[in-house]
Amino acid sequence: MTNTQVTHIQIDNYGPWTVTPEPRREVDLQTLQSRLYADLAQLFGNRDGYIFFSRFDNMIAVTNGLDEADHALIQESVGNRYPVTMSLSVATGTTPVSALGTATEQLQEAGSAQDDGRREVLRGQTIDDEFRTDADVQLAHFDVDDATEKYTDQLNEFDTFIQIEQGYAALMKYMREAHDSLSFFVGGDNVIAVCPDLDEADYRDACDHVRDAVDVELKVGVGRGRAPADAGMDAKHALEECRADGATVRFE
Amino acid sequence: MTNTQVTHIQIDNYGPWTVTPEPRREVDLQTLQSRLYADLAQLFGNRDGYIFFSRFDNMIAVTNGLDEADHALIQESVGNRYPVTMSLSVATGTTPVSALGTATEQLQEAGSAQDDGRREVLRGQTIDDEFRTDADVQLAHFDVDDATEKYTDQLNEFDTFIQIEQGYAALMKYMREAHDSLSFFVGGDNVIAVCPDLDEADYRDACDHVRDAVDVELKVGVGRGRAPADAGMDAKHALEECRADGATVRFE
Amino acid sequence: MTNTQVTHIQIDNYGPWTVTPEPRREVDLQTLQSRLYADLAQLFGNRDGYIFFSRFDNMIAVTNGLDEADHALIQESVGNRYPVTMSLSVATGTTPVSALGTATEQLQEAGSAQDDGRREVLRGQTIDDEFRTDADVQLAHFDVDDATEKYTDQLNEFDTFIQIEQGYAALMKYMREAHDSLSFFVGGDNVIAVCPDLDEADYRDACDHVRDAVDVELKVGVGRGRAPADAGMDAKHALEECRADGATVRFE
Amino acid sequence: MTNTQVTHIQIDNYGPWTVTPEPRREVDLQTLQSRLYADLAQLFGNRDGYIFFSRFDNMIAVTNGLDEADHALIQESVGNRYPVTMSLSVATGTTPVSALGTATEQLQEAGSAQDDGRREVLRGQTIDDEFRTDADVQLAHFDVDDATEKYTDQLNEFDTFIQIEQGYAALMKYMREAHDSLSFFVGGDNVIAVCPDLDEADYRDACDHVRDAVDVELKVGVGRGRAPADAGMDAKHALEECRADGATVRFE
Ligand SMILES: Nc1nc2c(ncn2[C@@H]2O[C@H](COP(=O)(O)OP(=O)(O)OP(=O)(O)O)[C@@H](O)[C@H]2O)c(=O)[nH]1
Ligand SMILES: Nc1nc2c(ncn2[C@@H]2O[C@H](COP(=O)(O)OP(=O)(O)OP(=O)(O)O)[C@@H](O)[C@H]2O)c(=O)[nH]1
Ligand SMILES: Nc1nc2c(ncn2[C@@H]2O[C@H](COP(=O)(O)OP(=O)(O)OP(=O)(O)O)[C@@H](O)[C@H]2O)c(=O)[nH]1
Ligand SMILES: Nc1nc2c(ncn2[C@@H]2O[C@H](COP(=O)(O)OP(=O)(O)OP(=O)(O)O)[C@@H](O)[C@H]2O)c(=O)[nH]1
Ligand SMILES: [Ca+2]
Ligand SMILES: [Ca+2]
Ligand SMILES: [Ca+2]
Ligand SMILES: [Ca+2]
Repeated sequence: MTNTQVTHIQIDNYGPWTVTPEPRREVDLQTLQSRLYADLAQLFGNRDGYIFFSRFDNMIAVTNGLDEADHALIQESVGNRYPVTMSLSVATGTTPVSALGTATEQLQEAGSAQDDGRREVLRGQTIDDEFRTDADVQLAHFDVDDATEKYTDQLNEFDTFIQIEQGYAALMKYMREAHDSLSFFVGGDNVIAVCPDLDEADYRDACDHVRDAVDVELKVGVGRGRAPADAGMDAKHALEECRADGATVRFE
Repeated sequence: MTNTQVTHIQIDNYGPWTVTPEPRREVDLQTLQSRLYADLAQLFGNRDGYIFFSRFDNMIAVTNGLDEADHALIQESVGNRYPVTMSLSVATGTTPVSALGTATEQLQEAGSAQDDGRREVLRGQTIDDEFRTDADVQLAHFDVDDATEKYTDQLNEFDTFIQIEQGYAALMKYMREAHDSLSFFVGGDNVIAVCPDLDEADYRDACDHVRDAVDVELKVGVGRGRAPADAGMDAKHALEECRADGATVRFE
Repeated sequence: MTNTQVTHIQIDNYGPWTVTPEPRREVDLQTLQSRLYADLAQLFGNRDGYIFFSRFDNMIAVTNGLDEADHALIQESVGNRYPVTMSLSVATGTTPVSALGTATEQLQEAGSAQDDGRREVLRGQTIDDEFRTDADVQLAHFDVDDATEKYTDQLNEFDTFIQIEQGYAALMKYMREAHDSLSFFVGGDNVIAVCPDLDEADYRDACDHVRDAVDVELKVGVGRGRAPADAGMDAKHALEECRADGATVRFE
Repeated sequence: MTNTQVTHIQIDNYGPWTVTPEPRREVDLQTLQSRLYADLAQLFGNRDGYIFFSRFDNMIAVTNGLDEADHALIQESVGNRYPVTMSLSVATGTTPVSALGTATEQLQEAGSAQDDGRREVLRGQTIDDEFRTDADVQLAHFDVDDATEKYTDQLNEFDTFIQIEQGYAALMKYMREAHDSLSFFVGGDNVIAVCPDLDEADYRDACDHVRDAVDVELKVGVGRGRAPADAGMDAKHALEECRADGATVRFE
């Protein structure tokens, strides 16, 4: 059984800030958002966590191994370097969806995303070291088969993007509904999913669903570990095995 | 009539690089990709262009006002600061889709995205200054109505994300097929579309389509200009007018 | 005769900010300062200017070719992305020192560096395009002879650093006093000086002075141009000529 | 007695790279160097270490608390994101100078800084956790008295910089020779010194020396700790006490 620790990160009162006193230049917003994400990738990643950009103003991280002090330091470090602040809420659960559900609720109880008075909230419980196990985190690295040959080198880049994007839209919805998983596009033709204790048939089912729905062929490597970094790296090695032997699903 | 100049940016031989000699840590890839995007946002943005991250390994920019020397300098600057290089191909057309079509084709003719020997290609034609007009670029800034109240403050963050993402997936496909436009998610609940000479009815039609297909309500501000930065800022002001008077579509 | 345009950049009220409400972590201050400098290097550099980090909270730029609107945009872009703001003051003069003198005075008149009420000041005059000439900027790129062999590969790194640093301290003071020039350490064993219309004998004199004072041997390449980027690149090519033929001073 | 762990970081074969095949644009080199430093500040800082930019191509870090695996990960992460690689050598000693001496020697034995074949060297011993104590690191935070009133608000910025720089040049040399300490300028009017077990009289002596040599008045806060981050933060608090009561030296 997995025991995923999930952190919901929300920029405080960001919508109003983007248009005060005037709409801010989009290039600056894009630079701010993507650098904040890059910094958080390093701040969480250096502690063996994983973060996903999702909507950029709201991000989702898998944080097994990070305690409250780690979260506080990350929050402070961003506050020291950005014109915006962020709130963090962390929770655990046997599925990623239930963990995130708790995390988001805690944040919502503290106030609206656009409540001017709610700043740098830090809520929730992390897993004590003694209760952590090697089965806590399951990550799956999905990848489109022969994306270069089938799409990138054939279609105009936007039509390639549509293929990848429709594949992602189908996968993320299905994995959420059928398998209580959180799936994130990570660039190129890759999606990383944070999963409960799924088995090979479940992943095969998801790949089948996407092929049937939008005609995009996927393969997937799955890794498990105490920390997201371990599970994620194992998933990548498993994916290389798919590449080597043509399998659709591989567990490391 | 618009005359959009579109640049297709592609990291050279990126797939193989990510797994050589071993799969590289995902946090480093994420950091690399998002910082490269942030740098390009500044490099294009400082010359009044706009770039969108799309797949990160392939990005699409609107570049009216940038000539070949600008493209060459951007390419060189990235080559000086990153472990990867990128190829650029630029073209123009009366619709963004046709411009991109030409740009991608030129790149494909130079070699595959995973051709080890194809590096730092720079192809295509830019618009001479004398032929530029104030009607060259049309940008539309779409935004979800009351996203905070309806989603962010109500659902768990992934379910909010699903709503936004399904809205985006529907919009990007429809705008491509029905209106020859390129639409990009830019974070939060926002999508920026690069459009040909569309009118109010066209935008209304797109918003209707998305509402009917996935039940997400949009409004949109539209701007036009000689350079993407002008059109984009106008679009934002128009969107503020939608906010002020409840309109679904506003042109600045 | 040179006509150097110099901009003095000052973070507003930075000292108090670093200790409010508590002293901020030094690593965050270092990250903030060096990234702000990197961003300004790009923002000025993309407009063919040069900026030097000097004290980080106060920086000095050579900005021939940038007008007031460019300065305003750079100021706004930083304000959009950092927790601190900055004031800019620009002036011109036949020597870099006199230009900077005017620039700093204008800023001081607007209020103290630690005046809480003085924010985002933008003062001064830039050179109209019609008055710019190819002789406006003279930049010199100084470099220590055989630094690798004599120091880096021989001494402990701090003792190497002491050599370079004492060389720099001697050079910057002498060039200021004897030649009205502004000299900046740019890393490694390199110093870039912003100079008035100096000739070969002047540079030879400066190198002799440093050798006599602190026993550090320098060579120097000199470039001239309409914009700092041109002069700077020419200086580098001239320095390569010194390397090729063993000369102490070379003009491109 | 202190037990300082010092890491010498050296970009591999950087000099030749900067001019191959042609001299690279200085703004790109500056951006590369300062971002690399910012990244290392975070990579070391997130593990409670401190790094100083010194010459940028060679940097010095205090790394008590980081083991070999931490160093390896930092090296790999930079290799994944930059066009250059770096070598690391770590050593310990009762004085920072002796620790650095060993570290640099190990690196020099592995090859020249400009040896094309020497890449990503990682050498040396770190302190086992069981041998670490709260007295291992002593950091001193020096600051110029009333720099704003005396210099920044009075002189042109370069003349202010000369004052600060001459103060630093005098301090770094004296602390090295008289007190086996490594002192680094960190921006503004601040210098952080990595020291052996010095007492109040030693610091008073150093401040006196600088006042007599170059007429710059300093105060200094001193902190001690198991890790650089603790010692550094204590030093900052001690400096605030100097500010509060006018003392020249304070230990936390
Ligand atoms: N984020 C991320 N992206 C990757 C990774 N590996 C590959 N990619 C992306 O995926 C794109 C396509 O590369 P591949 O998946 O290797 O190529 P392909 O043509 O689909 O070939 P196969 O997957 O081997 O069938 C690359 O350009 C990258 O953007 C990875 O580990 N992480
Ligand atoms: N990229 C980008 N994102 C924006 C911009 N304005 C708002 N956002 C994002 O949109 C999110 C929601 O903000 P709003 O759209 O203002 O809020 P809302 O609740 O939907 O309210 P209305 O749009 O006014 O109905 C913010 O958190 C931002 O992430 C913008 O100009 N650019
Ligand atoms: N900022 C900057 N630094 C440079 C540049 N070229 C070299 N360096 C730095 O200078 C250091 C020493 O390199 P070199 O000057 O080539 O080596 P050297 O041993 O002194 O040899 P010679 O100068 O050829 O006598 C490098 O590690 C870089 O840090 C440059 O163009 N700009
Ligand atoms: N790196 C770093 N720089 C700092 C810190 N505190 C202040 N500074 C810098 O020092 C500059 C001067 O600030 P202060 O030292 O507070 O001002 P001052 O006028 O000298 O006043 P006193 O030091 O109180 O006598 C600021 O602009 C900052 O650049 C710090 O903790 N770290
Ligand atoms: Ca693939
Ligand atoms: Ca909205
Ligand atoms: Ca040299
Ligand atoms: Ca001070």
